[in-house]
Amino acid sequence: MLESKQTATLPSGFQTSGTTCGIKASGKPDLALFVSDTPAVSAGVFTTNRVVGAPVTICKERVPASSIRAVIINSGNANACTGNQGLDDARAMTARVAEALGCNAEDILVCSTGIIGVNLPMDVITAGIPKAVDALAPSDDAFKAAATAMMTTDTFAKQFTASVGMSSGAVKIAGVAKGAAMIAPNMATMLSVIMTDAALTAEQCDDLLKHCVERTFNSISVDGHMSTSDTVLLLANGAADAAPADDNDFQTLRDGLQQVCEELATSIIRDAEGADHFITIDVEGFETRDAAFKVAKEIAESALVKTAITGNDPNWGRITSAAGYAGIDFDTVHLSLTINNTVVFKDGAPANFDEAELSAQMKSERDVYLRLVLSGGPASGKESVCFWTSDLTQEYVRLNSDYTT
Amino acid sequence: MLESKQTATLPSGFQTSGTTCGIKASGKPDLALFVSDTPAVSAGVFTTNRVVGAPVTICKERVPASSIRAVIINSGNANACTGNQGLDDARAMTARVAEALGCNAEDILVCSTGIIGVNLPMDVITAGIPKAVDALAPSDDAFKAAATAMMTTDTFAKQFTASVGMSSGAVKIAGVAKGAAMIAPNMATMLSVIMTDAALTAEQCDDLLKHCVERTFNSISVDGHMSTSDTVLLLANGAADAAPADDNDFQTLRDGLQQVCEELATSIIRDAEGADHFITIDVEGFETRDAAFKVAKEIAESALVKTAITGNDPNWGRITSAAGYAGIDFDTVHLSLTINNTVVFKDGAPANFDEAELSAQMKSERDVYLRLVLSGGPASGKESVCFWTSDLTQEYVRLNSDYTT
Repeated sequence: MLESKQTATLPSGFQTSGTTCGIKASGKPDLALFVSDTPAVSAGVFTTNRVVGAPVTICKERVPASSIRAVIINSGNANACTGNQGLDDARAMTARVAEALGCNAEDILVCSTGIIGVNLPMDVITAGIPKAVDALAPSDDAFKAAATAMMTTDTFAKQFTASVGMSSGAVKIAGVAKGAAMIAPNMATMLSVIMTDAALTAEQCDDLLKHCVERTFNSISVDGHMSTSDTVLLLANGAADAAPADDNDFQTLRDGLQQVCEELATSIIRDAEGADHFITIDVEGFETRDAAFKVAKEIAESALVKTAITGNDPNWGRITSAAGYAGIDFDTVHLSLTINNTVVFKDGAPANFDEAELSAQMKSERDVYLRLVLSGGPASGKESVCFWTSDLTQEYVRLNSDYTT
Repeated sequence: MLESKQTATLPSGFQTSGTTCGIKASGKPDLALFVSDTPAVSAGVFTTNRVVGAPVTICKERVPASSIRAVIINSGNANACTGNQGLDDARAMTARVAEALGCNAEDILVCSTGIIGVNLPMDVITAGIPKAVDALAPSDDAFKAAATAMMTTDTFAKQFTASVGMSSGAVKIAGVAKGAAMIAPNMATMLSVIMTDAALTAEQCDDLLKHCVERTFNSISVDGHMSTSDTVLLLANGAADAAPADDNDFQTLRDGLQQVCEELATSIIRDAEGADHFITIDVEGFETRDAAFKVAKEIAESALVKTAITGNDPNWGRITSAAGYAGIDFDTVHLSLTINNTVVFKDGAPANFDEAELSAQMKSERDVYLRLVLSGGPASGKESVCFWTSDLTQEYVRLNSDYTT
């Protein structure tokens, strides 16, 4: 049983706040705090970039864990490429939150997003943390405030809640994310915090998060540029007093978490700055999930595929040729492609279709759906993936090349 | 001893022509023919895309070889994604040339570039081939005509000749290329034909070409989208009666070939449609050439790096973070970066530099030079690569999304 809603409500035993400490010149909220009333089991998935922000290093040291109390997030400064000072500052942020909450610094996680290569203004952050703790509340408004304070160039706050009915009882899963609006002078960072009142072991927490992130947050791309700070954290505090009793329960819980992750991940793509189209790519019929994923990713990240879609051009040659250089040894005669459910390429040969009609449909709708199916020969099988991306517009280039000195 | 010049002259024993058979609606030249008076040793390097044009399949069957007489190239139609009819048509083109030259069809190579998914207009091609043979000449004008007839959206013909002095005598190496101006409704194709009057074995020919293509044609990228038809062919007819006598000679010849390849490959990037900057990326100090290559390629293909350079923004964070996701396990504290010889990142930390001055310099010059050096730790060593790319402009997007139905 799974129920979900856009109006986001916190699970039991969590409080949040979103406040302004003064990092951003704009004066907008820049400090988000997520607190569990009791120690929570926690797991994290992080950027695989070799160049990482200091908070990523700190979080990786601390999760998986069973005694996490809070996540502190600042926006406006990524604390990345800041050397040892950056690590000291990230640790100091967690110590300050721990002091206010009365726990150990090691029980606090930290994320930062914003400009890179600049040290954090620790004076305003240190002064701001007690105010963030004072503002904590278990309300919908406080949850929205926290989602808002994480934002950099996002145009809307990203929140989602699902209610899951297990045989042992009902639990909530609620998440926030900030995303990949690529207009800042640095690369954008994807951050997400997901909270649940389900009772989980640290191992279950880690397994659930990895499974769901692979299929959601790691299956989106705006432009293929991997951030130094991408972080997704899951906190499970057990306040609903319901643990998965069997495989069915675990599966139900995982479906709920995956739905929350998918809603948050796709909302990042929907908010991609300068994008005209939201593109869903299904790749089906491959021997391994990894092969299907590589094909989907090459299609999603091809500038020629993206610009064709920007131009409402059902240019299947760009799509099939991108699939062809993914390094997977398939045979073209087994490949078929539909665009918005119109067959454009069938068993390795061009299909007859009304190009003008399909183009007009692409123009009238923001969503575009590509489905590539391999139906035999080498590399074929039963695995499929779904991947989401945006198109590439002149506005994207304008935003990302806009630099004034 | 190596001498080279932009005014392109054919090596001994080669004739070329560039004619109009009527494939292109514009009426521009569309048939290029390269003929060796005697059977030539030949090798080829081809796209690794799984989706390939019919001519690629035919050429792969025929090289390396020792009896190649000619290369026939049409522009205006890529003969790709055209099924068995496409293979028949490509074979028929070679048969028609063989008939006119009085040799076997298997001794003729073929390339096609232009729109994909449409069958070749074989009537006009069949009628055009005898005229192309009639127009053959060993002159500079005929060489220029051949280079011109290969063009699709190129704005200039790409030719280069080098003279190489071996201990056994002097030889010439002359090449043409057509390139990656990405404005067609299909992806652009890179084609190159290189001729030398040196005497080589088929194995030497193959080794030389692979070595040089890896460092030149395979080290350029406009947007990372691999074509279905990329082909580089080398023909060596021995007309200069000079074979490499020792390792020194072989090295000298290889240097000459690499220079020709580099001039042709970089001229493709210089002709990239919509580009404002020509970017050279040196990556140095890695344990393997492959690792350095992966790092250089990620930097070259990052939309955020490209758009930063479009904006004349010395945004080193985008460059170092692109290096970080190349999958190479280096340590950031050993990484340094210069932009136009200004140190912007040193041993893992931001360097002090005059950002406004560097930006002004980037704005005033078309060429941008990035140098990333790893100087210790894991993955470090003595290997380096050079990679060339262009920036990403609004004009690129406009050209590639311009579709009218």
